[in-house]
Amino acid sequence: MPDPKITIGDFNALSTQKLPFAGLMGYRVEDIGYGTARMRLPVEEQHLRPGGTVAGPALMGLADATMYAVVMGMIGPVELAVTTNLTCNFLRRPSMVDIIAEGKILKLGKRLAVGEVSLYSEGDPEPVAHVTATYSIPPDATD
Amino acid sequence: MPDPKITIGDFNALSTQKLPFAGLMGYRVEDIGYGTARMRLPVEEQHLRPGGTVAGPALMGLADATMYAVVMGMIGPVELAVTTNLTCNFLRRPSMVDIIAEGKILKLGKRLAVGEVSLYSEGDPEPVAHVTATYSIPPDATD
Amino acid sequence: MPDPKITIGDFNALSTQKLPFAGLMGYRVEDIGYGTARMRLPVEEQHLRPGGTVAGPALMGLADATMYAVVMGMIGPVELAVTTNLTCNFLRRPSMVDIIAEGKILKLGKRLAVGEVSLYSEGDPEPVAHVTATYSIPPDATD
Amino acid sequence: MPDPKITIGDFNALSTQKLPFAGLMGYRVEDIGYGTARMRLPVEEQHLRPGGTVAGPALMGLADATMYAVVMGMIGPVELAVTTNLTCNFLRRPSMVDIIAEGKILKLGKRLAVGEVSLYSEGDPEPVAHVTATYSIPPDATD
Repeated sequence: MPDPKITIGDFNALSTQKLPFAGLMGYRVEDIGYGTARMRLPVEEQHLRPGGTVAGPALMGLADATMYAVVMGMIGPVELAVTTNLTCNFLRRPSMVDIIAEGKILKLGKRLAVGEVSLYSEGDPEPVAHVTATYSIPPDATD
Repeated sequence: MPDPKITIGDFNALSTQKLPFAGLMGYRVEDIGYGTARMRLPVEEQHLRPGGTVAGPALMGLADATMYAVVMGMIGPVELAVTTNLTCNFLRRPSMVDIIAEGKILKLGKRLAVGEVSLYSEGDPEPVAHVTATYSIPPDATD
Repeated sequence: MPDPKITIGDFNALSTQKLPFAGLMGYRVEDIGYGTARMRLPVEEQHLRPGGTVAGPALMGLADATMYAVVMGMIGPVELAVTTNLTCNFLRRPSMVDIIAEGKILKLGKRLAVGEVSLYSEGDPEPVAHVTATYSIPPDATD
Repeated sequence: MPDPKITIGDFNALSTQKLPFAGLMGYRVEDIGYGTARMRLPVEEQHLRPGGTVAGPALMGLADATMYAVVMGMIGPVELAVTTNLTCNFLRRPSMVDIIAEGKILKLGKRLAVGEVSLYSEGDPEPVAHVTATYSIPPDATD
Protein backbone atom coordinates (compact mmCIF):
# COMPACT_ATOMS: atom_id res chain seq x y z
CA MET A 1 0.00 0.00 0.00
CA PRO A 2 1.48 3.41 -0.93
CA ASP A 3 1.93 6.09 1.70
CA PRO A 4 -0.91 8.61 1.98
CA LYS A 5 -0.27 11.73 -0.10
CA ILE A 6 -1.28 14.21 2.57
CA THR A 7 -0.45 14.39 6.27
CA ILE A 8 -2.99 14.84 9.03
CA GLY A 9 -1.48 18.24 9.81
CA ASP A 10 -1.62 19.42 6.21
CA PHE A 11 -5.20 18.23 5.81
CA ASN A 12 -6.36 19.99 8.95
CA ALA A 13 -4.60 23.19 7.84
CA LEU A 14 -6.16 23.01 4.38
CA SER A 15 -9.54 22.16 5.88
CA THR A 16 -9.38 25.20 8.17
CA GLN A 17 -8.61 27.46 5.23
CA LYS A 18 -10.77 25.93 2.55
CA LEU A 19 -13.65 24.31 4.41
CA PRO A 20 -14.94 26.92 6.86
CA PHE A 21 -18.02 24.79 7.33
CA ALA A 22 -15.78 22.04 8.69
CA GLY A 23 -14.16 24.56 10.99
CA LEU A 24 -17.54 25.85 12.14
CA MET A 25 -18.63 22.33 12.99
CA GLY A 26 -15.33 21.41 14.63
CA TYR A 27 -14.53 18.41 12.43
CA ARG A 28 -11.01 16.99 13.02
CA VAL A 29 -9.23 14.34 10.99
CA GLU A 30 -7.62 11.66 13.14
CA ASP A 31 -6.17 9.28 10.59
CA ILE A 32 -5.46 9.26 6.86
CA GLY A 33 -4.25 6.19 5.01
CA TYR A 34 -4.03 5.42 1.31
CA GLY A 35 -7.73 5.09 0.58
CA THR A 36 -9.01 5.50 4.14
CA ALA A 37 -9.64 8.29 6.64
CA ARG A 38 -11.14 8.71 10.09
CA MET A 39 -12.65 11.97 11.33
CA ARG A 40 -14.30 13.11 14.54
CA LEU A 41 -17.18 15.46 15.26
CA PRO A 42 -16.89 16.66 18.85
CA VAL A 43 -20.34 17.22 20.32
CA GLU A 44 -19.50 19.70 23.04
CA GLU A 45 -20.94 22.56 20.97
CA GLN A 46 -24.34 23.72 22.10
CA HIS A 47 -25.70 24.04 18.56
CA LEU A 48 -25.24 20.36 17.77
CA ARG A 49 -27.59 19.12 20.44
CA PRO A 50 -31.19 19.94 19.57
CA GLY A 51 -33.23 17.61 21.74
CA GLY A 52 -30.11 15.72 22.66
CA THR A 53 -28.96 14.64 19.24
CA VAL A 54 -26.75 15.62 16.31
CA ALA A 55 -28.21 17.48 13.33
CA GLY A 56 -28.43 15.50 10.10
CA PRO A 57 -26.56 18.09 8.01
CA ALA A 58 -23.72 18.00 10.55
CA LEU A 59 -23.44 14.26 9.91
CA MET A 60 -23.58 14.69 6.13
CA GLY A 61 -20.94 17.42 6.31
CA LEU A 62 -18.70 15.18 8.41
CA ALA A 63 -19.03 12.37 5.87
CA ASP A 64 -18.30 14.78 3.02
CA ALA A 65 -15.16 16.07 4.75
CA THR A 66 -14.06 12.50 5.49
CA MET A 67 -14.39 11.58 1.84
CA TYR A 68 -12.36 14.68 0.97
CA ALA A 69 -9.61 13.34 3.25
CA VAL A 70 -9.84 9.89 1.64
CA VAL A 71 -9.41 11.41 -1.82
CA MET A 72 -6.52 13.67 -0.78
CA GLY A 73 -4.81 10.68 0.81
CA MET A 74 -4.73 9.16 -2.68
CA ILE A 75 -4.09 12.13 -4.97
CA GLY A 76 -2.61 14.78 -2.67
CA PRO A 77 -3.95 18.25 -1.81
CA VAL A 78 -6.06 18.79 -4.93
CA GLU A 79 -8.28 21.52 -3.61
CA LEU A 80 -10.54 21.65 -6.63
CA ALA A 81 -11.90 18.16 -6.16
CA VAL A 82 -15.61 18.72 -5.57
CA THR A 83 -18.52 16.58 -4.44
CA THR A 84 -20.94 15.73 -7.23
CA ASN A 85 -23.21 13.28 -5.44
CA LEU A 86 -23.87 12.36 -1.82
CA THR A 87 -26.40 9.83 -0.56
CA CYS A 88 -27.04 9.48 3.16
CA ASN A 89 -29.07 6.82 4.95
CA PHE A 90 -29.87 7.85 8.50
CA LEU A 91 -29.97 4.69 10.59
CA ARG A 92 -30.13 5.42 14.32
CA ARG A 93 -30.49 8.40 16.60
CA PRO A 94 -26.97 9.46 17.64
CA SER A 95 -26.10 9.56 21.33
CA MET A 96 -24.66 12.66 22.97
CA VAL A 97 -21.08 11.56 22.41
CA ASP A 98 -18.60 12.33 19.65
CA ILE A 99 -19.36 11.06 16.18
CA ILE A 100 -16.62 9.01 14.49
CA ALA A 101 -16.59 8.74 10.68
CA GLU A 102 -14.74 5.92 8.95
CA GLY A 103 -14.27 6.48 5.22
CA LYS A 104 -12.84 4.25 2.52
CA ILE A 105 -12.43 4.43 -1.22
CA LEU A 106 -14.54 2.25 -3.49
CA LYS A 107 -13.08 3.43 -6.79
CA LEU A 108 -10.46 5.98 -7.74
CA GLY A 109 -10.66 6.81 -11.42
CA LYS A 110 -9.04 9.58 -13.42
CA ARG A 111 -12.14 11.71 -13.25
CA LEU A 112 -14.26 10.39 -10.41
CA ALA A 113 -13.61 9.03 -6.95
CA VAL A 114 -16.35 7.09 -5.15
CA GLY A 115 -16.26 6.11 -1.51
CA GLU A 116 -18.37 5.20 1.46
CA VAL A 117 -18.38 6.57 5.00
CA SER A 118 -19.86 4.89 8.06
CA LEU A 119 -20.68 7.12 11.03
CA TYR A 120 -20.78 5.93 14.63
CA SER A 121 -21.54 7.31 18.06
CA GLU A 122 -18.19 6.75 19.76
CA GLY A 123 -18.16 3.44 21.58
CA ASP A 124 -21.18 1.97 19.80
CA PRO A 125 -20.49 -0.51 16.97
CA GLU A 126 -23.85 0.07 15.25
CA PRO A 127 -23.65 2.88 12.66
CA VAL A 128 -25.85 5.98 13.04
CA ALA A 129 -25.60 6.81 9.33
CA HIS A 130 -24.09 5.53 6.10
CA VAL A 131 -22.99 7.73 3.21
CA THR A 132 -21.78 7.13 -0.31
CA ALA A 133 -20.20 10.09 -2.08
CA THR A 134 -18.65 10.87 -5.43
CA TYR A 135 -15.96 13.48 -6.01
CA SER A 136 -15.06 14.93 -9.39
CA ILE A 137 -11.30 15.20 -9.83
CA PRO A 138 -10.03 18.06 -11.99
CA PRO A 139 -8.04 17.20 -15.13
CA ASP A 140 -4.31 16.57 -14.67
CA ALA A 141 -4.67 16.02 -10.92
CA THR A 142 -3.69 12.38 -11.19
CA ASP A 143 -1.24 12.55 -14.08
CA MET B 1 -56.18 21.47 -2.91
CA PRO B 2 -56.50 21.47 0.88
CA ASP B 3 -55.09 24.31 2.96
CA PRO B 4 -51.58 23.75 4.33
CA LYS B 5 -51.64 22.36 7.87
CA ILE B 6 -49.01 24.68 9.26
CA THR B 7 -48.51 28.41 8.87
CA ILE B 8 -45.25 30.08 7.90
CA GLY B 9 -45.07 31.67 11.33
CA ASP B 10 -45.65 28.40 13.17
CA PHE B 11 -43.08 26.59 11.04
CA ASN B 12 -40.43 29.24 11.62
CA ALA B 13 -41.14 29.17 15.37
CA LEU B 14 -40.92 25.36 15.47
CA SER B 15 -37.81 25.44 13.29
CA THR B 16 -36.12 27.89 15.65
CA GLN B 17 -36.86 25.65 18.61
CA LYS B 18 -36.38 22.24 17.11
CA LEU B 19 -33.88 22.76 14.30
CA PRO B 20 -31.02 24.77 15.79
CA PHE B 21 -28.94 23.89 12.75
CA ALA B 22 -31.51 25.71 10.63
CA GLY B 23 -31.28 28.68 12.96
CA LEU B 24 -27.49 28.61 12.85
CA MET B 25 -27.59 28.67 9.06
CA GLY B 26 -30.30 31.31 8.89
CA TYR B 27 -32.79 29.31 6.85
CA ARG B 28 -36.21 31.00 6.50
CA VAL B 29 -39.37 29.55 5.05
CA GLU B 30 -41.12 31.89 2.61
CA ASP B 31 -44.04 29.82 1.43
CA ILE B 32 -45.84 26.64 2.44
CA GLY B 33 -48.62 25.09 0.39
CA TYR B 34 -50.24 21.68 0.55
CA GLY B 35 -47.35 19.61 -0.75
CA THR B 36 -44.97 22.47 -1.56
CA ALA B 37 -42.62 24.80 0.28
CA ARG B 38 -40.06 27.48 -0.55
CA MET B 39 -37.16 28.37 1.71
CA ARG B 40 -34.29 30.84 1.55
CA LEU B 41 -30.69 30.66 2.69
CA PRO B 42 -29.38 34.20 3.08
CA VAL B 43 -25.70 34.33 2.19
CA GLU B 44 -24.65 37.38 4.14
CA GLU B 45 -22.98 35.23 6.78
CA GLN B 46 -19.24 35.15 6.55
CA HIS B 47 -19.02 31.43 7.19
CA LEU B 48 -21.02 30.52 4.12
CA ARG B 49 -18.59 31.98 1.65
CA PRO B 50 -15.40 29.95 1.50
CA GLY B 51 -13.81 30.92 -1.79
CA GLY B 52 -16.95 32.77 -2.78
CA THR B 53 -19.43 29.93 -2.64
CA VAL B 54 -21.92 28.13 -0.40
CA ALA B 55 -20.87 25.00 1.50
CA GLY B 56 -22.42 21.73 0.31
CA PRO B 57 -23.75 20.74 3.75
CA ALA B 58 -25.49 24.14 4.00
CA LEU B 59 -27.31 23.29 0.76
CA MET B 60 -28.21 19.78 1.95
CA GLY B 61 -29.44 21.19 5.25
CA LEU B 62 -31.59 23.73 3.43
CA ALA B 63 -33.12 20.99 1.28
CA ASP B 64 -33.77 18.86 4.35
CA ALA B 65 -35.50 21.74 6.14
CA THR B 66 -37.55 22.49 3.03
CA MET B 67 -38.74 18.92 2.86
CA TYR B 68 -39.65 19.15 6.56
CA ALA B 69 -41.83 22.14 5.69
CA VAL B 70 -43.41 20.25 2.78
CA VAL B 71 -44.30 17.35 5.07
CA MET B 72 -45.68 19.60 7.83
CA GLY B 73 -47.77 21.42 5.26
CA MET B 74 -49.50 18.10 4.65
CA ILE B 75 -49.67 16.47 8.09
CA GLY B 76 -49.27 19.39 10.50
CA PRO B 77 -46.55 20.02 13.10
CA VAL B 78 -45.49 16.41 13.62
CA GLU B 79 -42.12 17.07 15.17
CA LEU B 80 -41.03 13.46 15.25
CA ALA B 81 -40.98 13.07 11.48
CA VAL B 82 -37.33 12.27 10.71
CA THR B 83 -35.24 12.07 7.58
CA THR B 84 -34.30 8.50 6.65
CA ASN B 85 -32.65 9.10 3.28
CA LEU B 86 -31.30 12.11 1.43
CA THR B 87 -29.61 12.11 -1.97
CA CYS B 88 -28.03 15.27 -3.31
CA ASN B 89 -26.68 15.94 -6.78
CA PHE B 90 -24.49 19.03 -6.87
CA LEU B 91 -24.92 20.61 -10.27
CA ARG B 92 -23.34 24.07 -10.46
CA ARG B 93 -21.20 26.33 -8.30
CA PRO B 94 -23.58 28.68 -6.45
CA SER B 95 -23.16 32.42 -6.90
CA MET B 96 -22.76 34.76 -3.95
CA VAL B 97 -26.46 35.47 -3.72
CA ASP B 98 -29.22 33.90 -1.62
CA ILE B 99 -30.10 30.28 -2.28
CA ILE B 100 -33.78 29.54 -2.95
CA ALA B 101 -35.11 26.01 -2.36
CA GLU B 102 -38.31 24.83 -4.01
CA GLY B 103 -39.69 21.61 -2.53
CA LYS B 104 -42.59 19.43 -3.56
CA ILE B 105 -44.05 16.15 -2.44
CA LEU B 106 -43.73 13.06 -4.64
CA LYS B 107 -45.59 10.67 -2.36
CA LEU B 108 -47.24 10.99 1.02
CA GLY B 109 -47.89 7.60 2.54
CA LYS B 110 -48.91 6.61 6.03
CA ARG B 111 -45.36 5.80 7.01
CA LEU B 112 -43.11 7.52 4.48
CA ALA B 113 -43.10 10.84 2.68
CA VAL B 114 -40.86 11.30 -0.36
CA GLY B 115 -40.16 14.62 -2.04
CA GLU B 116 -37.73 16.51 -4.19
CA VAL B 117 -36.12 19.89 -3.70
CA SER B 118 -34.47 22.03 -6.38
CA LEU B 119 -32.01 24.67 -5.21
CA TYR B 120 -31.24 27.85 -7.13
CA SER B 121 -28.99 30.86 -6.83
CA GLU B 122 -31.60 33.62 -6.68
CA GLY B 123 -32.29 35.01 -10.13
CA ASP B 124 -30.73 32.10 -12.04
CA PRO B 125 -33.14 29.51 -13.51
CA GLU B 126 -30.51 26.74 -13.63
CA PRO B 127 -30.46 24.70 -10.42
CA VAL B 128 -27.28 24.53 -8.33
CA ALA B 129 -28.35 21.29 -6.67
CA HIS B 130 -31.15 18.73 -6.68
CA VAL B 131 -32.21 16.67 -3.67
CA THR B 132 -34.59 13.78 -3.08
CA ALA B 133 -35.42 13.01 0.52
CA THR B 134 -37.54 10.55 2.48
CA TYR B 135 -39.11 11.26 5.85
CA SER B 136 -40.41 8.61 8.20
CA ILE B 137 -43.74 9.61 9.74
CA PRO B 138 -44.47 8.36 13.25
CA PRO B 139 -47.50 6.08 13.76
CA ASP B 140 -50.85 7.84 14.23
CA ALA B 141 -49.56 11.12 12.82
CA THR B 142 -51.86 10.93 9.84
CA ASP B 143 -54.86 9.20 11.41
CA MET C 1 -33.85 25.53 -27.98
CA PRO C 2 -31.54 23.60 -30.33
CA ASP C 3 -32.79 20.60 -32.27
CA PRO C 4 -32.18 17.22 -30.63
CA LYS C 5 -28.97 15.59 -31.85
CA ILE C 6 -30.45 12.16 -32.39
CA THR C 7 -33.68 11.05 -34.02
CA ILE C 8 -36.16 8.65 -32.48
CA GLY C 9 -35.40 6.14 -35.21
CA ASP C 10 -31.64 6.34 -34.72
CA PHE C 11 -31.99 6.02 -30.96
CA ASN C 12 -34.18 2.96 -31.22
CA ALA C 13 -31.75 1.39 -33.69
CA LEU C 14 -28.77 2.10 -31.44
CA SER C 15 -30.70 0.91 -28.42
CA THR C 16 -31.51 -2.37 -30.12
CA GLN C 17 -27.86 -2.92 -30.98
CA LYS C 18 -26.19 -1.58 -27.86
CA LEU C 19 -28.73 -2.07 -25.10
CA PRO C 20 -29.94 -5.66 -25.37
CA PHE C 21 -31.46 -5.31 -21.92
CA ALA C 22 -33.67 -2.56 -23.31
CA GLY C 23 -34.62 -4.82 -26.19
CA LEU C 24 -35.35 -7.69 -23.81
CA MET C 25 -37.65 -5.45 -21.77
CA GLY C 26 -39.30 -3.91 -24.81
CA TYR C 27 -38.51 -0.29 -24.01
CA ARG C 28 -39.40 2.14 -26.82
CA VAL C 29 -38.54 5.80 -27.08
CA GLU C 30 -41.51 7.98 -28.07
CA ASP C 31 -40.06 11.47 -27.98
CA ILE C 32 -36.64 13.09 -27.80
CA GLY C 33 -36.13 16.83 -27.41
CA TYR C 34 -33.08 18.86 -26.53
CA GLY C 35 -32.78 17.88 -22.88
CA THR C 36 -35.93 15.75 -22.65
CA ALA C 37 -37.10 12.28 -23.61
CA ARG C 38 -40.15 10.08 -23.14
CA MET C 39 -40.04 6.29 -23.20
CA ARG C 40 -42.58 3.51 -22.80
CA LEU C 41 -42.44 0.10 -21.18
CA PRO C 42 -45.20 -2.05 -22.65
CA VAL C 43 -46.51 -4.45 -20.03
CA GLU C 44 -47.89 -7.19 -22.23
CA GLU C 45 -44.89 -9.42 -21.49
CA GLN C 46 -45.65 -12.20 -19.06
CA HIS C 47 -42.39 -11.75 -17.17
CA LEU C 48 -43.18 -8.21 -16.14
CA ARG C 49 -46.23 -9.07 -14.11
CA PRO C 50 -45.34 -10.89 -10.92
CA GLY C 51 -48.39 -10.55 -8.71
CA GLY C 52 -49.86 -8.05 -11.10
CA THR C 53 -47.13 -5.45 -11.04
CA VAL C 54 -43.94 -4.33 -12.75
CA ALA C 55 -40.55 -5.46 -11.41
CA GLY C 56 -38.42 -2.74 -9.81
CA PRO C 57 -35.35 -3.41 -11.98
CA ALA C 58 -37.52 -3.06 -15.09
CA LEU C 59 -38.46 0.43 -13.87
CA MET C 60 -34.86 1.33 -13.08
CA GLY C 61 -33.75 0.06 -16.46
CA LEU C 62 -36.43 2.13 -18.17
CA ALA C 63 -35.28 5.24 -16.33
CA ASP C 64 -31.67 4.53 -17.22
CA ALA C 65 -32.52 4.13 -20.90
CA THR C 66 -34.60 7.31 -20.81
CA MET C 67 -31.68 9.24 -19.37
CA TYR C 68 -29.48 7.78 -22.12
CA ALA C 69 -31.94 9.23 -24.66
CA VAL C 70 -31.91 12.60 -22.89
CA VAL C 71 -28.10 12.72 -23.05
CA MET C 72 -27.97 11.65 -26.70
CA GLY C 73 -30.53 14.29 -27.55
CA MET C 74 -27.97 16.83 -26.33
CA ILE C 75 -24.61 15.40 -27.45
CA GLY C 76 -25.53 12.97 -30.23
CA PRO C 77 -24.98 9.21 -30.43
CA VAL C 78 -22.05 8.98 -28.02
CA GLU C 79 -22.26 5.30 -27.26
CA LEU C 80 -19.61 5.32 -24.58
CA ALA C 81 -21.55 7.55 -22.22
CA VAL C 82 -22.07 5.34 -19.17
CA THR C 83 -24.17 5.54 -16.02
CA THR C 84 -22.12 6.26 -12.90
CA ASN C 85 -24.90 6.73 -10.36
CA LEU C 86 -28.61 5.97 -10.24
CA THR C 87 -30.96 6.61 -7.32
CA CYS C 88 -34.52 5.33 -7.43
CA ASN C 89 -37.35 6.11 -5.05
CA PHE C 90 -40.22 3.66 -5.47
CA LEU C 91 -43.41 5.55 -4.72
CA ARG C 92 -46.52 3.55 -5.64
CA ARG C 93 -47.40 0.09 -6.88
CA PRO C 94 -47.68 0.28 -10.68
CA SER C 95 -50.93 -0.72 -12.33
CA MET C 96 -51.04 -3.33 -15.08
CA VAL C 97 -50.78 -0.75 -17.82
CA ASP C 98 -47.81 0.61 -19.76
CA ILE C 99 -45.22 2.59 -17.83
CA ILE C 100 -44.36 6.02 -19.22
CA ALA C 101 -41.01 7.60 -18.33
CA GLU C 102 -40.48 11.35 -18.64
CA GLY C 103 -36.84 12.39 -18.45
CA LYS C 104 -35.21 15.80 -18.37
CA ILE C 105 -31.71 17.13 -17.99
CA LEU C 106 -30.67 18.90 -14.79
CA LYS C 107 -27.10 19.67 -15.80
CA LEU C 108 -25.02 18.94 -18.88
CA GLY C 109 -21.35 19.44 -18.17
CA LYS C 110 -18.28 18.49 -20.18
CA ARG C 111 -17.74 15.35 -18.17
CA LEU C 112 -21.01 14.60 -16.38
CA ALA C 113 -24.68 14.79 -17.25
CA VAL C 114 -27.28 14.67 -14.49
CA GLY C 115 -31.00 14.23 -15.03
CA GLU C 116 -34.21 13.10 -13.43
CA VAL C 117 -36.86 10.71 -14.69
CA SER C 118 -40.42 10.43 -13.42
CA LEU C 119 -42.25 7.16 -14.11
CA TYR C 120 -46.01 6.85 -14.39
CA SER C 121 -48.60 4.17 -14.94
CA GLU C 122 -50.17 5.43 -18.16
CA GLY C 123 -53.20 7.57 -17.43
CA ASP C 124 -52.36 8.20 -13.77
CA PRO C 125 -50.78 11.58 -12.89
CA GLU C 126 -49.18 10.30 -9.68
CA PRO C 127 -45.66 8.94 -10.27
CA VAL C 128 -44.87 5.29 -9.45
CA ALA C 129 -41.15 5.99 -9.17
CA HIS C 130 -38.64 8.84 -9.38
CA VAL C 131 -35.05 8.46 -10.52
CA THR C 132 -32.00 10.70 -10.63
CA ALA C 133 -29.09 9.48 -12.71
CA THR C 134 -25.60 10.64 -13.67
CA TYR C 135 -23.86 9.75 -16.90
CA SER C 136 -20.13 10.09 -17.48
CA ILE C 137 -19.39 11.56 -20.90
CA PRO C 138 -16.17 10.44 -22.58
CA PRO C 139 -13.54 13.10 -23.40
CA ASP C 140 -14.00 14.96 -26.69
CA ALA C 141 -17.64 13.95 -26.97
CA THR C 142 -18.85 17.52 -26.54
CA ASP C 143 -15.99 19.39 -28.17
CA MET D 1 -25.84 -14.57 16.23
CA PRO D 2 -29.33 -16.04 15.66
CA ASP D 3 -29.93 -18.59 12.92
CA PRO D 4 -31.20 -17.16 9.62
CA LYS D 5 -34.98 -17.25 9.38
CA ILE D 6 -35.15 -18.62 5.86
CA THR D 7 -33.21 -21.44 4.18
CA ILE D 8 -31.45 -21.15 0.84
CA GLY D 9 -33.91 -23.63 -0.64
CA ASP D 10 -36.96 -21.76 0.62
CA PHE D 11 -35.60 -18.43 -0.60
CA ASN D 12 -34.89 -19.77 -4.08
CA ALA D 13 -38.37 -21.31 -4.23
CA LEU D 14 -40.01 -18.07 -3.11
CA SER D 15 -37.82 -16.08 -5.48
CA THR D 16 -38.86 -18.28 -8.42
CA GLN D 17 -42.52 -17.77 -7.59
CA LYS D 18 -42.52 -14.16 -6.51
CA LEU D 19 -39.61 -12.57 -8.34
CA PRO D 20 -39.95 -13.62 -11.99
CA PHE D 21 -37.43 -10.95 -12.88
CA ALA D 22 -34.88 -12.78 -10.72
CA GLY D 23 -35.77 -16.01 -12.50
CA LEU D 24 -35.47 -14.34 -15.89
CA MET D 25 -32.01 -13.08 -14.99
CA GLY D 26 -30.94 -16.37 -13.43
CA TYR D 27 -30.05 -15.00 -9.99
CA ARG D 28 -29.26 -17.70 -7.42
CA VAL D 29 -28.73 -17.27 -3.70
CA GLU D 30 -25.64 -19.09 -2.39
CA ASP D 31 -25.59 -18.15 1.27
CA ILE D 32 -27.93 -16.56 3.78
CA GLY D 33 -26.88 -15.67 7.32
CA TYR D 34 -28.53 -13.54 9.96
CA GLY D 35 -28.03 -10.14 8.34
CA THR D 36 -25.98 -11.29 5.35
CA ALA D 37 -26.54 -12.94 1.98
CA ARG D 38 -24.53 -13.83 -1.10
CA MET D 39 -26.04 -14.20 -4.57
CA ARG D 40 -24.72 -15.03 -8.02
CA LEU D 41 -25.57 -13.78 -11.48
CA PRO D 42 -24.40 -16.38 -14.01
CA VAL D 43 -23.32 -14.65 -17.21
CA GLU D 44 -23.79 -17.48 -19.67
CA GLU D 45 -27.00 -15.93 -21.00
CA GLN D 46 -26.63 -14.20 -24.34
CA HIS D 47 -28.72 -11.22 -23.32
CA LEU D 48 -26.42 -10.20 -20.51
CA ARG D 49 -23.44 -9.53 -22.70
CA PRO D 50 -23.93 -6.41 -24.80
CA GLY D 51 -20.44 -5.49 -25.93
CA GLY D 52 -18.96 -7.97 -23.52
CA THR D 53 -20.38 -6.66 -20.28
CA VAL D 54 -23.29 -6.95 -17.88
CA ALA D 55 -26.26 -4.58 -18.15
CA GLY D 56 -26.60 -2.06 -15.32
CA PRO D 57 -30.21 -2.99 -14.52
CA ALA D 58 -29.15 -6.65 -14.20
CA LEU D 59 -26.67 -5.55 -11.53
CA MET D 60 -29.24 -3.39 -9.74
CA GLY D 61 -31.75 -6.24 -9.83
CA LEU D 62 -29.17 -8.62 -8.38
CA ALA D 63 -28.44 -6.19 -5.55
CA ASP D 64 -32.16 -5.75 -4.90
CA ALA D 65 -32.70 -9.52 -4.72
CA THR D 66 -29.68 -9.90 -2.44
CA MET D 67 -31.08 -7.31 -0.07
CA TYR D 68 -34.41 -9.18 -0.13
CA ALA D 69 -32.51 -12.30 1.00
CA VAL D 70 -30.74 -10.32 3.74
CA VAL D 71 -34.07 -9.06 5.07
CA MET D 72 -35.74 -12.48 4.92
CA GLY D 73 -32.78 -13.97 6.76
CA MET D 74 -33.70 -11.66 9.63
CA ILE D 75 -37.51 -11.58 9.60
CA GLY D 76 -38.45 -14.73 7.67
CA PRO D 77 -40.41 -15.06 4.40
CA VAL D 78 -42.30 -11.76 4.59
CA GLU D 79 -43.22 -11.48 0.95
CA LEU D 80 -44.71 -8.02 1.22
CA ALA D 81 -41.47 -6.36 2.16
CA VAL D 82 -40.87 -3.93 -0.71
CA THR D 83 -37.98 -1.77 -1.87
CA THR D 84 -38.54 1.93 -1.25
CA ASN D 85 -35.12 3.31 -2.22
CA LEU D 86 -32.13 1.98 -4.12
CA THR D 87 -28.94 3.87 -4.90
CA CYS D 88 -26.31 2.33 -7.16
CA ASN D 89 -22.80 3.56 -7.85
CA PHE D 90 -21.32 1.89 -10.92
CA LEU D 91 -17.59 1.58 -10.33
CA ARG D 92 -15.90 -0.62 -12.93
CA ARG D 93 -16.79 -2.40 -16.14
CA PRO D 94 -17.65 -6.00 -15.22
CA SER D 95 -15.67 -8.81 -16.83
CA MET D 96 -17.40 -11.64 -18.67
CA VAL D 97 -17.53 -13.85 -15.61
CA ASP D 98 -20.24 -14.42 -13.00
CA ILE D 99 -21.18 -11.50 -10.77
CA ILE D 100 -21.11 -12.15 -7.02
CA ALA D 101 -23.18 -9.94 -4.71
CA GLU D 102 -22.35 -9.68 -1.01
CA GLY D 103 -25.12 -8.05 1.04
CA LYS D 104 -25.26 -7.07 4.68
CA ILE D 105 -27.71 -5.29 6.92
CA LEU D 106 -26.97 -1.77 8.19
CA LYS D 107 -30.14 -1.34 10.22
CA LEU D 108 -33.18 -3.48 10.87
CA GLY D 109 -35.99 -1.43 12.33
CA LYS D 110 -39.64 -2.23 12.87
CA ARG D 111 -40.64 -0.47 9.69
CA LEU D 112 -37.51 -0.10 7.58
CA ALA D 113 -34.49 -2.25 6.80
CA VAL D 114 -31.41 -0.65 5.27
CA GLY D 115 -28.48 -2.56 3.83
CA GLU D 116 -25.61 -2.38 1.43
CA VAL D 117 -24.55 -4.74 -1.34
CA SER D 118 -21.14 -4.91 -2.99
CA LEU D 119 -20.95 -6.54 -6.42
CA TYR D 120 -17.84 -8.22 -7.82
CA SER D 121 -16.74 -9.92 -11.00
CA GLU D 122 -15.90 -13.37 -9.61
CA GLY D 123 -12.24 -13.60 -8.73
CA ASP D 124 -11.59 -9.85 -8.69
CA PRO D 125 -11.47 -8.15 -5.27
CA GLU D 126 -12.35 -4.69 -6.65
CA PRO D 127 -16.12 -4.07 -6.68
CA VAL D 128 -17.89 -3.37 -9.98
CA ALA D 129 -20.80 -1.66 -8.24
CA HIS D 130 -22.02 -0.66 -4.78
CA VAL D 131 -25.67 -0.42 -3.77
CA THR D 132 -27.53 0.80 -0.72
CA ALA D 133 -31.19 -0.16 -0.48
CA THR D 134 -34.11 0.36 1.88
CA TYR D 135 -36.97 -2.08 2.31
CA SER D 136 -40.28 -1.22 3.92
CA ILE D 137 -41.47 -3.96 6.26
CA PRO D 138 -45.22 -4.42 6.59
CA PRO D 139 -46.80 -3.96 10.04
CA ASP D 140 -46.73 -7.00 12.36
CA ALA D 141 -44.00 -8.71 10.36
CA THR D 142 -41.51 -8.40 13.20
CA ASP D 143 -43.85 -8.66 16.16
